[in-house]
Amino acid sequence: MKHEKAKVKIIPLGGINEIGKNITAIEYKNDIVVIDCGLKFPDDDMYGIDLVIPDVSYLIKNKEKVRGIFLTHGHEDHIGALPYVLKQLNVPVYGTKLTIGIVETKLKEHGLLSSTELIRVKPRDVIKLNSVSVEFIKTNHSIADSVAIAIHTPLGVVLHTGDFKVDFTPIDGVPMDFARFAEIGKKGVLAMMADSTNVERPGYTMSERVVGENLFKLFSKAKGRIIVATFASNIHRIQQILDAARALNKKVAVSGRSMENIVAVAKELGYLECEDDVLVSIDNINKYNNNQVVIITTGSQGEPMSALARMANAEHRKVAIVEGDTVILSATPIPGNEKLVSKVINQLFHKGAEVIYKSLDEVHVSGHACQEELKLMLCLVKPRFFIPVHGEYRHLKQHCELAVSVGVSENNVLIPENGAIIEVNRNGIKKNGNVTAGQVFVDGLGVGDVGNIVLRDRKHLSQDGILTVVVTISREDQKVIAGPDIISRGFVYVRESEGLMDEAKEIVKNVLKECEEKNITDWASLKGRVRDELRNYLYEKTKRKPMILPIIMEI
Amino acid sequence: MKHEKAKVKIIPLGGINEIGKNITAIEYKNDIVVIDCGLKFPDDDMYGIDLVIPDVSYLIKNKEKVRGIFLTHGHEDHIGALPYVLKQLNVPVYGTKLTIGIVETKLKEHGLLSSTELIRVKPRDVIKLNSVSVEFIKTNHSIADSVAIAIHTPLGVVLHTGDFKVDFTPIDGVPMDFARFAEIGKKGVLAMMADSTNVERPGYTMSERVVGENLFKLFSKAKGRIIVATFASNIHRIQQILDAARALNKKVAVSGRSMENIVAVAKELGYLECEDDVLVSIDNINKYNNNQVVIITTGSQGEPMSALARMANAEHRKVAIVEGDTVILSATPIPGNEKLVSKVINQLFHKGAEVIYKSLDEVHVSGHACQEELKLMLCLVKPRFFIPVHGEYRHLKQHCELAVSVGVSENNVLIPENGAIIEVNRNGIKKNGNVTAGQVFVDGLGVGDVGNIVLRDRKHLSQDGILTVVVTISREDQKVIAGPDIISRGFVYVRESEGLMDEAKEIVKNVLKECEEKNITDWASLKGRVRDELRNYLYEKTKRKPMILPIIMEI
Repeated sequence: MKHEKAKVKIIPLGGINEIGKNITAIEYKNDIVVIDCGLKFPDDDMYGIDLVIPDVSYLIKNKEKVRGIFLTHGHEDHIGALPYVLKQLNVPVYGTKLTIGIVETKLKEHGLLSSTELIRVKPRDVIKLNSVSVEFIKTNHSIADSVAIAIHTPLGVVLHTGDFKVDFTPIDGVPMDFARFAEIGKKGVLAMMADSTNVERPGYTMSERVVGENLFKLFSKAKGRIIVATFASNIHRIQQILDAARALNKKVAVSGRSMENIVAVAKELGYLECEDDVLVSIDNINKYNNNQVVIITTGSQGEPMSALARMANAEHRKVAIVEGDTVILSATPIPGNEKLVSKVINQLFHKGAEVIYKSLDEVHVSGHACQEELKLMLCLVKPRFFIPVHGEYRHLKQHCELAVSVGVSENNVLIPENGAIIEVNRNGIKKNGNVTAGQVFVDGLGVGDVGNIVLRDRKHLSQDGILTVVVTISREDQKVIAGPDIISRGFVYVRESEGLMDEAKEIVKNVLKECEEKNITDWASLKGRVRDELRNYLYEKTKRKPMILPIIMEI
Repeated sequence: MKHEKAKVKIIPLGGINEIGKNITAIEYKNDIVVIDCGLKFPDDDMYGIDLVIPDVSYLIKNKEKVRGIFLTHGHEDHIGALPYVLKQLNVPVYGTKLTIGIVETKLKEHGLLSSTELIRVKPRDVIKLNSVSVEFIKTNHSIADSVAIAIHTPLGVVLHTGDFKVDFTPIDGVPMDFARFAEIGKKGVLAMMADSTNVERPGYTMSERVVGENLFKLFSKAKGRIIVATFASNIHRIQQILDAARALNKKVAVSGRSMENIVAVAKELGYLECEDDVLVSIDNINKYNNNQVVIITTGSQGEPMSALARMANAEHRKVAIVEGDTVILSATPIPGNEKLVSKVINQLFHKGAEVIYKSLDEVHVSGHACQEELKLMLCLVKPRFFIPVHGEYRHLKQHCELAVSVGVSENNVLIPENGAIIEVNRNGIKKNGNVTAGQVFVDGLGVGDVGNIVLRDRKHLSQDGILTVVVTISREDQKVIAGPDIISRGFVYVRESEGLMDEAKEIVKNVLKECEEKNITDWASLKGRVRDELRNYLYEKTKRKPMILPIIMEI
């Protein structure tokens, strides 16, 4: 067999070995197609960071090749970095109607709407670029209008499933496009990247419709108000809440900024069907009896500033939880949020509400495919090469094993890494080099101005606080003119530790005296001495290591 | 019916609406019996705190009444605060053999062993005090030698279940003492406090024995070394690991300080049966073939400094994970630890190990009773009054509902609070007043010297860092002699933000000039002005709010 020299490059710039900031570059000759552009929420040890976005230097360096950003769906981990990336890389953005609708709201807030070319596509649309074309294929997920993306190259099709599940009875009535997946599978797919989120779970993810049935039952039983917290973007869930409410002659009000935004966009674009008399303003709910009222709210993750947390905390201006309310948490805590969610549930119970959540009833289903669904996708598409994405290492590893179990050759699966260049053609797949990839921290208005040193300092400060030591010294004769003064924050409760601080001051005085006697004018080493002596003394006395900041004022 | 005036007081000083620091005072006339004395691990927002212990001022105030601390079992959340509390309150400590064995190790570390009276008891032992007597009743739990405690008072029995599950086939061969629970139930129990941890789970908790069977199957299949991470205190789990290893002719080594300590204590006290040739030193494992080696280790919660985390990270001095190793996480992540555990699992997979954990196989069972077991306890003991303990509010609420469902009168259940005095006699139960109760932070050597102000400062520092502004001013004419200097830590990466810092300095200079012109010598208001002006400027430029610390040196 003659070896082809041409190759497709697949370069994940995020989303591998992590949950979030999904973004992948597919490169063939002079064309780069970017799939998704997501953000990640900061880990616990990223103190003070608001958001994490991918490092896209590689795309900026190859600006002239980038044909556009192609979105699979409208979740933050797939579109959230767009406003930041578009500021550096002004390229067209393609997506289905709802996805683009959500992107519009986002770009408006960042003042980028007029400068960005947004292109609405439909499933089965094909966008022809230079040497490749990009096709959108309908899938099901926990947000409406999600698609897989197939990139047709002269070397074969590269398919990215996006986030997906197999829902035979989806709320919009249209299951994923089995026929099209089978068709491209039959013609031959070079490589497939697929969602690995739920690869650890055997069996099938339940249909979204199951949640609707359970919500209806709960709504029927409830004696008072019903408050449902769910993800703002889960339009189908919201549709089912509206349907259950309408069937039981209840009114629905919406609370929480992101929920209000998305409901407005979805209604305008026709993704929410709802008669005008069902949806009412949150300001008017008191006009109805409690048993006529349903409130849809944000806060299903226990976020401390969310509408639900404020209700639970008696800090919401319009809704106070009372005995007789039924609160439904129609979501599962995302790993890391368990304690926050738990806190809100406790507060709600404490206020007298009945609280329904995952451990007690089936009020949520996942948006991601379990093992049997992943196998179905693999069997329909029958990719020659398989690359698991959207997961931590353990998910990717297990997804490879799953692929092999349904017939992909063991040599034809590959676990990717952020930044690694994966080269593939019919003859093989391999990693060949790396491009810059990583995380950029967004903190307030700053993008990238907080790095590892700042984070290390914040961590240090958070553990044991800081001691500032100030002294004014004469430039001429190294005599101490004022101080030393020691001011601490976050170290000890000073009033109870006067003796400690007095002794610390004595230690600094001794160091200064010694330096004066030895005529030391090298302030750096003087500061070093102060720092060392204080650190040792404080550690011995307290087993703590506060940051020590010596400041010398020279006059 | 004549109303009795005498009452038993039940005062939880910890463990209610929280997981951890379990401690309850039972008071009758001049006798106070204290049940357990546990610690709590700090929440995420308790920056830098090592441990949280209960505030026992009430016990100290009533020192002469306290007859002793009676322990239900040897878990940290039931015994961990002992070294701190005993320093303030030197009373006898009662517990079963293993519990006291574990306490001894702990007191030795704190130099308290010789000054503490430790009393070993057996199930069914009764300790007679003045007006009450205390009885120990065998239960099952995830640590050996756990007991419930019944306090016999002239007004009736007050029963505290301790942590328990119902295991019909426990590893030590002795199920909980059903007969004794039934007997005191028949005679009539005034009030029962019971473990609420698993009240949300229907059905039964599986027997510990199931884990042993699964471990044996996994051990038989493993081709290379086997590394099992579990809780050090789970002696029965460790026994089953030893048994499986012996049956398959494998050697067992132990890694991790707490694991080594507990195995030593348990072996010495006869709680671990193990022939001498099974247990080998970790230093000698290389003498055996990989398929002959089992390593028991700490780190099942992903603790960054634990033996398992160090193995996963290639930082363990004696064990490096290699392809072919099978690592079994025989534990479930405690809420809050999910991400740490996940990280370790990913690293282990990355090193080539096969990793078995809860989502993949039944390698762990809970130590707490599920709904049917809780009902069994309620039906055996038939308490007149019921007080759920050991849980968050939602657990306590649901445990009350469960008690009512099996026949406890709705008026006879009561949700306790830390510090609330519960008064009970045959005629009724009610809260009547409060005693001091709360949390005391242990940070390094400091106990209680870190309070809310220090924590608030640490949190503030962790979010946006600190800016220190120093200026030397003449006392005589308020003229600036040196500075202002601005030094920041954890705020921005300074080299990239020189402009920002320069402008900040200008702002301070202007404030100082103004104050000089106005002859302001009130340094407090001068500092206030500096802080306000800088805060506004920085927030406008960065949307961050670092701590601002103005320091004036007067000469």
